[in-house]
Amino acid sequence: MSEKVDFLLVGGVVVTMNARYDLFAEGAVAVRDDAIVAVGPAEMLLRDYSADETVDCTGKVIFPGMVNAHTHVPMTLVRGLNDDLRLDVWLGYLMPLEREFVTPEFVKLGTRVACAEMIRSGITTFADMYYFEEAIAEETAEIGMRALLGQTVLVFPAPDAETYEDALVRCRRFIEKWNGHPLIQPAVAPHAWYTATPELMRACADLARAYDVPIHTHVSETHLEVSNCREQHRMPVVPWISKHGLLETKLLAAHCVHLDEGEMFQLKKAGAGVAHCPSSNLKLASGMAQVGKMLKIGLNVGVGTDGPASNNDLDMVEEVRLAALMAKAVSDDPTVLPARQALELATIGGARAVHMADKIGSLEPGKKADLVVMDMDGVHNWPHFHNNPDAVYSRIIYAAKSTDVRHVMVNGRWLLRDHQLLTVDEAAAKAEAAKVAAEIDAFVLKRESSPYNKLVLLSGVQRQESFEVQVKVPVADDKLVLEAIQKPELEIVKHSHYRQYDHYFVFGGGDPDAARLRYREDDYVNEKGEVYQTRTRLTLIGESSLHEFPNAVMLSRSRYLAPADRPLRFYREYFAPEKEVTVAKERRRWRVIYQETDFALNLDKILEPALPGFYLEIKSRTWSRHDAERKARLITELLQLLGLDPATAERNEYPEIALQQQTAVS
Amino acid sequence: MSEKVDFLLVGGVVVTMNARYDLFAEGAVAVRDDAIVAVGPAEMLLRDYSADETVDCTGKVIFPGMVNAHTHVPMTLVRGLNDDLRLDVWLGYLMPLEREFVTPEFVKLGTRVACAEMIRSGITTFADMYYFEEAIAEETAEIGMRALLGQTVLVFPAPDAETYEDALVRCRRFIEKWNGHPLIQPAVAPHAWYTATPELMRACADLARAYDVPIHTHVSETHLEVSNCREQHRMPVVPWISKHGLLETKLLAAHCVHLDEGEMFQLKKAGAGVAHCPSSNLKLASGMAQVGKMLKIGLNVGVGTDGPASNNDLDMVEEVRLAALMAKAVSDDPTVLPARQALELATIGGARAVHMADKIGSLEPGKKADLVVMDMDGVHNWPHFHNNPDAVYSRIIYAAKSTDVRHVMVNGRWLLRDHQLLTVDEAAAKAEAAKVAAEIDAFVLKRESSPYNKLVLLSGVQRQESFEVQVKVPVADDKLVLEAIQKPELEIVKHSHYRQYDHYFVFGGGDPDAARLRYREDDYVNEKGEVYQTRTRLTLIGESSLHEFPNAVMLSRSRYLAPADRPLRFYREYFAPEKEVTVAKERRRWRVIYQETDFALNLDKILEPALPGFYLEIKSRTWSRHDAERKARLITELLQLLGLDPATAERNEYPEIALQQQTAVS
Repeated sequence: MSEKVDFLLVGGVVVTMNARYDLFAEGAVAVRDDAIVAVGPAEMLLRDYSADETVDCTGKVIFPGMVNAHTHVPMTLVRGLNDDLRLDVWLGYLMPLEREFVTPEFVKLGTRVACAEMIRSGITTFADMYYFEEAIAEETAEIGMRALLGQTVLVFPAPDAETYEDALVRCRRFIEKWNGHPLIQPAVAPHAWYTATPELMRACADLARAYDVPIHTHVSETHLEVSNCREQHRMPVVPWISKHGLLETKLLAAHCVHLDEGEMFQLKKAGAGVAHCPSSNLKLASGMAQVGKMLKIGLNVGVGTDGPASNNDLDMVEEVRLAALMAKAVSDDPTVLPARQALELATIGGARAVHMADKIGSLEPGKKADLVVMDMDGVHNWPHFHNNPDAVYSRIIYAAKSTDVRHVMVNGRWLLRDHQLLTVDEAAAKAEAAKVAAEIDAFVLKRESSPYNKLVLLSGVQRQESFEVQVKVPVADDKLVLEAIQKPELEIVKHSHYRQYDHYFVFGGGDPDAARLRYREDDYVNEKGEVYQTRTRLTLIGESSLHEFPNAVMLSRSRYLAPADRPLRFYREYFAPEKEVTVAKERRRWRVIYQETDFALNLDKILEPALPGFYLEIKSRTWSRHDAERKARLITELLQLLGLDPATAERNEYPEIALQQQTAVS
Repeated sequence: MSEKVDFLLVGGVVVTMNARYDLFAEGAVAVRDDAIVAVGPAEMLLRDYSADETVDCTGKVIFPGMVNAHTHVPMTLVRGLNDDLRLDVWLGYLMPLEREFVTPEFVKLGTRVACAEMIRSGITTFADMYYFEEAIAEETAEIGMRALLGQTVLVFPAPDAETYEDALVRCRRFIEKWNGHPLIQPAVAPHAWYTATPELMRACADLARAYDVPIHTHVSETHLEVSNCREQHRMPVVPWISKHGLLETKLLAAHCVHLDEGEMFQLKKAGAGVAHCPSSNLKLASGMAQVGKMLKIGLNVGVGTDGPASNNDLDMVEEVRLAALMAKAVSDDPTVLPARQALELATIGGARAVHMADKIGSLEPGKKADLVVMDMDGVHNWPHFHNNPDAVYSRIIYAAKSTDVRHVMVNGRWLLRDHQLLTVDEAAAKAEAAKVAAEIDAFVLKRESSPYNKLVLLSGVQRQESFEVQVKVPVADDKLVLEAIQKPELEIVKHSHYRQYDHYFVFGGGDPDAARLRYREDDYVNEKGEVYQTRTRLTLIGESSLHEFPNAVMLSRSRYLAPADRPLRFYREYFAPEKEVTVAKERRRWRVIYQETDFALNLDKILEPALPGFYLEIKSRTWSRHDAERKARLITELLQLLGLDPATAERNEYPEIALQQQTAVS
């Protein structure tokens, strides 16, 4: 009398990924409820089991559902929005957008789109890290995928938590609600060491241990991150997170691109999982993880797609192939990470990495019924050789495509049959996603419409109106001016000396609020000529309104000031100006009182573009037309006092002079 | 009155890849005969042209057919046969197989399978290098793809030419027959500098120039290749091929993984094309080409899949994505090779690399009608953003799959419509390929059935029977033996001193011809203890038949000798023995005459496994039972003369002693 099961998958090659790597050339898998009941030769299972439904898998391959060990699923909704940028610029674009858009509804929709794609590529379990993770959990559970979901905790305000204390409260509630769910494993996700404080990290570790849930965090993704950690903490990343308790938890460490061997051993000893993300690491130029070495050491390595915004897809077949290819090049050895081991990383290895190997990752009686049935007869995967049964691993890893995935089952439930999704209304999800994309488009177009909007979104600004009377005259010999400045009619209040490097970004589009953006670096110079202090400022300069007086002008313009705490390169890539003009000068500056009136005298040597002689600028703030007229007169007197001819005044500002130089040269 | 055309492709985004990178959001392409007549906004073309057939491409993207800049198409028929091996081992498997199987019929079938796959992935032109290229040309022309086909020329016997002179004759005939064909561009394909002589290279260059056809060759694929070239020719690869005329031809240089900057400039100056093959370079651990640098220098870089035996597919979408991803990591800069430029490499850049940019590579009036229509609405490529029109490049490069290719046209002829191949009977080709695969399976199984077969296929063997009388006794103190050997009863004919490193590969399976394979390295040592000569030999040792005498044994066994001109590592990976035993010894050897009979005395110190004391072996060749009995008696006398006890004789041979040691330890 044969035993009753729900499903019998019969025929085709069964790739078990069990400890003996058993293969059954004409195999079968029996499933009852949420679990695998039997795996073996088709003949035997057909004899021993009778099924509600028998699925003919002849010519196909049946293997364990794949584990996407690191991703951020809601980011499907920003897929392809910004590419080919440096990480900081990309974040500069992305984070204001996330602040604007990320809500529980947003993450649910993004999860829906992601699950559709992941199921289609043979993923049955994924490890996520994002905001509003409880909404992601609801959506994932409804769709029927398995997941480790990490609620993000970081020091900065996030879309779902103003402070990290709020984030911890949210995380605790999330764990309490979902822990023990058959599909969802809640987890704590301190984003990374560099967005954490020691207290935050320790609190996350304590929370994870209190509920015995995993921690999901980013570790050593970029070279810069590691050198920052060494600089700030005198140790690399793994010792630091170890110091704050993370290695006492069930840790899932994403990326691990720049580990040294000691760190690998430390992670190994802690039983930690590593999520290797090859596409993302290449695309963001983060580097290439030493996967061959990690595997030699015996680390639990899985493969992750990372978020679809930095990949740009969730194609696990492609990801595992890339892992296999890259490991060889990095190790300089084509025998490293052979096909069978690559499939291992995607299945049982990934299951180990996400701390679920007791439940999933291989086709064995007693394990959850998470499996993939893949077509093997595409012309791209043809012909087949049978002299070595292990060739099936090669076919899956080196030639198969995710579109060869025909059926997918999770926890005994079919999610995909004959390429049709059974638990996601894909068309509806796509239509909704298109609507969100249109809203994002509008947001981005508004942001991109002016440098002002981009600056506001980046860091906020402080507005300042400026009214100045000023004149600038060429000076052939600075010695005469230096002597004249000592005349008793002038009282010198303050003297300073600095080098000033101005980078003007010039924009088209005629936004009167943003004629140009200036990135200014002031290098203060002491008596020995050494730089003793440096200051950088960002100023968005509106169009000038100019009023001429005899021998002087009054300028009024709007200025928006912002801290310039990022490198010039960032602003250049973020603002993508139409043109850039550089002016470097050596400035000797005096604040003087003349006729009871405050003036600034700048004696400038223009270094870039290299101009002959010097310029003397005389400036004074003003607030009224009457006051301006008076100051214009005083400036004329001052010029004469300094032995300069007011008639030689230069009307152009330095960037214009520089631009004329550029044009003359080219 | 509107102009008449054959096809009007209407709607969707037209990505022209012309010099201005024109995009038409709602675009159209008009095709008449083999050429593009017009490209522009749909509205305009619908007004100006009337077509026999209008193809609605709404929601899709239309872009130039892709150029696979380097491959070996017939190798589809060995796809996945051997993977995860070092190049030399892989060639060790492959080349005997090619000698056996490669015929015009074989290459035609392989081409058919490859074309089916390539068309499906959006390739319209490919650059090939293989044998019987005229048969590949026939098949390709019939299927309707465009190709640059390089007939291989090398110094070794090839499946289609015994000598390189024969190959050159074949190549000339091939060029004469096909030059000027609308689809096929014949080319000369000297395989690589290291399989060429200066005369061969020069002859190839002369032939290419005489007919004004391209040269297709491998350049600087591995680090070893380059260091060999530097060693042999005192220059890297590009200067060497330049010296022999290749840079005076229309050159297509495949791989170019290890070029220095000077070589890049040299290739650039020569107008050469580079075929970058990322999958293959990673999979074989060849290295990572400096594509970012090449592009900066202005080289014409295309992307190639390489042969399907080292990839293992011909998926151009995947290949171009990988090129884009890798270039960023190699340059340590995520802004390198952005999506638009990546598509450029796959289209007009590839066209330049294969010297066809006047005909193909962009959608422009007057160019040949080679194009791809790709679906953009897969959930893996959703949603779309429209704030930046260039996002279409991101969608194609970072998220699209080759299975999104819906229609493909070459030279104005449809090869794929709605995912259906129109000019290849795919099912029939697959059935034939399965038959060939079964034959290859049989061949491989026979080869794999015994180390003897593997050795024969690798390098041929020389058979030798050996009959020896021998004894081996432990010696506590070598000084006594060294003194005794000077006795007048012994005449020393020759003395030598060497270190002997024996690696025994032990096989299961009970093949009497192949009990074990010995890789022996003899290091001859001079009086100062310095190694002055080294010799390596490979010996396949059959099972011994053993006849015992009092105090001695007669051994007879079959031995097959082969030159050991490859490293031990190669043989280890090629023969994949069940077990390996290493015996290293210091041997002092005397040939002596005793009682008018020739004996060899070996005084051995076993270094690995480290054994205490010494062994003395006494051996003599024998041919008859009677002679053997006499020599066994003389050996007993000799032992006594040397002060040794015949009763202590060791019955085991060294590898057995070593094995016992291993077992005792473990």
